[in-house]
Amino acid sequence: MESGAIQDAYPDDLAHCYGCGRLNEHGLHVRSRWDGDETVAVLTPRAYHTAIPGYVYGGLIASLVDCHGTGSAALAAQRTEGGAEVPRFVTASLQVDFLRPTPMGVALEARGKIQEIKPRKVTIEVTVSAHGEVCARGRVVAVRMPEGMRAGSPA
Amino acid sequence: MESGAIQDAYPDDLAHCYGCGRLNEHGLHVRSRWDGDETVAVLTPRAYHTAIPGYVYGGLIASLVDCHGTGSAALAAQRTEGGAEVPRFVTASLQVDFLRPTPMGVALEARGKIQEIKPRKVTIEVTVSAHGEVCARGRVVAVRMPEGMRAGSPA
Repeated sequence: MESGAIQDAYPDDLAHCYGCGRLNEHGLHVRSRWDGDETVAVLTPRAYHTAIPGYVYGGLIASLVDCHGTGSAALAAQRTEGGAEVPRFVTASLQVDFLRPTPMGVALEARGKIQEIKPRKVTIEVTVSAHGEVCARGRVVAVRMPEGMRAGSPA
Repeated sequence: MESGAIQDAYPDDLAHCYGCGRLNEHGLHVRSRWDGDETVAVLTPRAYHTAIPGYVYGGLIASLVDCHGTGSAALAAQRTEGGAEVPRFVTASLQVDFLRPTPMGVALEARGKIQEIKPRKVTIEVTVSAHGEVCARGRVVAVRMPEGMRAGSPA
């Protein structure tokens, strides 16, 4: 296991994301870290994150895939480039296939595999498992955040 | 404008979805209705549903696409089949392309176009707009809820 979660190292002004920002007090706090050559994040849904009773809401699974995708992109770019400030990525495209109903009441494990790294674009394949069984499979195309999105930056 | 929101007509035991269930007190309450041959749902994100400050969290947009997709599938099946109980669909596949950053502080309009209706599967294309400008484009493959997912049903 290598280092901590990448979201802990995002600059403060970019750490308010509902899905993964450590400074969003209402948020989900997805935290992505390396595990060998894969990335991993663990999230336990809240009781009200339900779909059909007993099963996890698909939008929550999509949120986990989304933030673990951008987090994995940042991990990959950081490992490739080094540099003082952690690179921040946003989602260009998100795909989730729901393979089986995801049970409530257990921690979900998202695992990412970096498929491609380009200077401004990283593609990540993500699985989401419960009890070790893959329930959903996703794909995120993450692109480097345009500087113009940052508050206080020139328009 | 034809009738009300389909989610208002889901049976009580299937109305707890975090995204669109009227009985989920913490939920987003996505409500989908016909507008001619298109379906529409309007959602105003909460202040903490942010990504980079100033812009809406992608997972929330994915959630809106997801629930408006399954709601649109139910609307389409109901219009095609009639029947006493509203049919309930779940998501098999969700795709969202984020075309531009989605601004916070305005109502988002999701519009669905039914692409294909089969007895157990409906495909819907969804756009999400802010200020009349399309910010995201999605595609949902919705399948009829397996009866085994319903609490109290035989395993």
